[in-house]
Amino acid sequence: MKKFVNDPKHYVPEMLRGIALANPDTVTYVPEYNLIMRTDIPRSDKVSIVQGSGSGHEPAHVMLVGKGMLDAACPGDIFAAPPMDYVYETTKLVASPKGVLLLVNNYTGDKMAFEMSQEMSAADGITVKTLFIDDDVSVQDSTYTVGRRGVAGNFFVIKAVGAAAESGADLDEVVRIGEKVNSVTRTMGMALTSCTPPAKGSPLFELGEDEMEMGVGIHGEPGRRRATLASANEIVDELLEAVVNDLPYQSGDRVALMINGLGGTPISELYILFGRAHDRLTEKGITVGRAYVGEYCTSLDMAGASLTLVRLDDEIEELLAAPAEIPLRIF
Amino acid sequence: MKKFVNDPKHYVPEMLRGIALANPDTVTYVPEYNLIMRTDIPRSDKVSIVQGSGSGHEPAHVMLVGKGMLDAACPGDIFAAPPMDYVYETTKLVASPKGVLLLVNNYTGDKMAFEMSQEMSAADGITVKTLFIDDDVSVQDSTYTVGRRGVAGNFFVIKAVGAAAESGADLDEVVRIGEKVNSVTRTMGMALTSCTPPAKGSPLFELGEDEMEMGVGIHGEPGRRRATLASANEIVDELLEAVVNDLPYQSGDRVALMINGLGGTPISELYILFGRAHDRLTEKGITVGRAYVGEYCTSLDMAGASLTLVRLDDEIEELLAAPAEIPLRIF
Repeated sequence: MKKFVNDPKHYVPEMLRGIALANPDTVTYVPEYNLIMRTDIPRSDKVSIVQGSGSGHEPAHVMLVGKGMLDAACPGDIFAAPPMDYVYETTKLVASPKGVLLLVNNYTGDKMAFEMSQEMSAADGITVKTLFIDDDVSVQDSTYTVGRRGVAGNFFVIKAVGAAAESGADLDEVVRIGEKVNSVTRTMGMALTSCTPPAKGSPLFELGEDEMEMGVGIHGEPGRRRATLASANEIVDELLEAVVNDLPYQSGDRVALMINGLGGTPISELYILFGRAHDRLTEKGITVGRAYVGEYCTSLDMAGASLTLVRLDDEIEELLAAPAEIPLRIF
Repeated sequence: MKKFVNDPKHYVPEMLRGIALANPDTVTYVPEYNLIMRTDIPRSDKVSIVQGSGSGHEPAHVMLVGKGMLDAACPGDIFAAPPMDYVYETTKLVASPKGVLLLVNNYTGDKMAFEMSQEMSAADGITVKTLFIDDDVSVQDSTYTVGRRGVAGNFFVIKAVGAAAESGADLDEVVRIGEKVNSVTRTMGMALTSCTPPAKGSPLFELGEDEMEMGVGIHGEPGRRRATLASANEIVDELLEAVVNDLPYQSGDRVALMINGLGGTPISELYILFGRAHDRLTEKGITVGRAYVGEYCTSLDMAGASLTLVRLDDEIEELLAAPAEIPLRIF
């Protein structure tokens, strides 16, 4: 296994500790509950936003905690939902009189942990709502889901509800915005290689040297089809058609276009994909208003990419453009 | 070869075109000379900063073009120095009455291309100076160098000279700052895997399943030693000792610490390395004043990382903290 790892059992806590050490002014690591939270919350003047999910998708979600984004992230172990009691403790730590919004990617395990912790928090008198994200058009149901999976489009929901919460919007308004962004966001991904979970030490699934998995899930779940390796342009075209036709996005639409790397693909390749997607959207009369190229939601060291579109309007675009400050940064 | 590629000959131009399409307001792609430049230059009130190098190290340098960083980047093909005449044409396009600074990582091919183009530009009456970056402590001479190699520490030189140029500093002052930052910056990297150049289609060098290359170059050049795969902590400790002892960095120093991924390593692993390096520096009485974790200078899809330290003083810290705006961004 070609990884930087000490004991695989400590992979997640060591990562979380590193994040906090690199960002001492803005985030805190709470080892008892395996969580990362902002240093300046809870604040009585804003709704608190929490997301948890399995680890292995970094920067999602533990590197997205900060001003204008998440107030806390409570990850599980690699590809495992966070324990219900950790979600509950996280909710209590960030509880604000304006309420708490729990963001949950639609997987059965996460859903169960968050729904139960929401009930427990509500019994404590905390106002909590939950919003499910399900942007993946690849498959209707999957290995760990009833319904569509939540993948990289999640970033846009976090960005929009984070900006709204920061500006003082109340809980119902923040939920309305999150549901609206989720409703206009669609993603499909594909894998060139499997990923290797540190505790397993070997690839999660097998892909031949000449094969790729179209529509793969971010935990290596099967997609739409196993296909012969194709060119960058052919791959983008297939992802884009699936995404465009799903909503559908139409001529005259203005969109955000994200090309997200799955962990093992260099950013140079992502820009090759972006250029082709931009061309194809332009041909369809769809304007790329905002561009996102890089790693937003990964699957450990998987080589692969996903393509996300968000249909923009003035409200969404303003929220996406609002300032934010998170551990994931360049400078 | 598990890559997003169409024709390998078009890998670099397709990537450059993608960068410009994603950032239409801030950068332009000039296909004739294979370059990326800011849309708002040349400006008569600032020194222009240019860097070129082989491609395959993205985000370096083509995604570092923008306000407060580079004014243009003229890349060569994968791992190949840019043609001399492209460097010359780039210099002419950005020429400012305040002068042009060419940044060059210390490799024989790059050095030759930039030195010759500097002579040609000077003959045209353009004021040009050149600054060589050689932060890699791994080896004294290497496959493509006389003297030390320039690697990820290059980012700090660009950031500092970019900020100084943006604030109106004259050419001599910008050169002074660049030389100063280079003189207090040291890096060492290591590889867990080889990378695969798209035109070659197979790994550049062989590393056994249980092997790693300590001190590897960003073109896969040999490092200090081929060793048995070790734990994350052991790897960081070896990199850190080599870097700290070189300058040397000493108790009481305040530093920037960068953990740079080489292209195929997920950011979760980089934070594990960061946490250990932070602990070891603290034990040595060295304070981490600024933290950088992510991909800054890669080697295509190589799994691996490098560790960079910069000794900070008030002047350098202010320049590193100045605002900048480049294609490499999150939001």
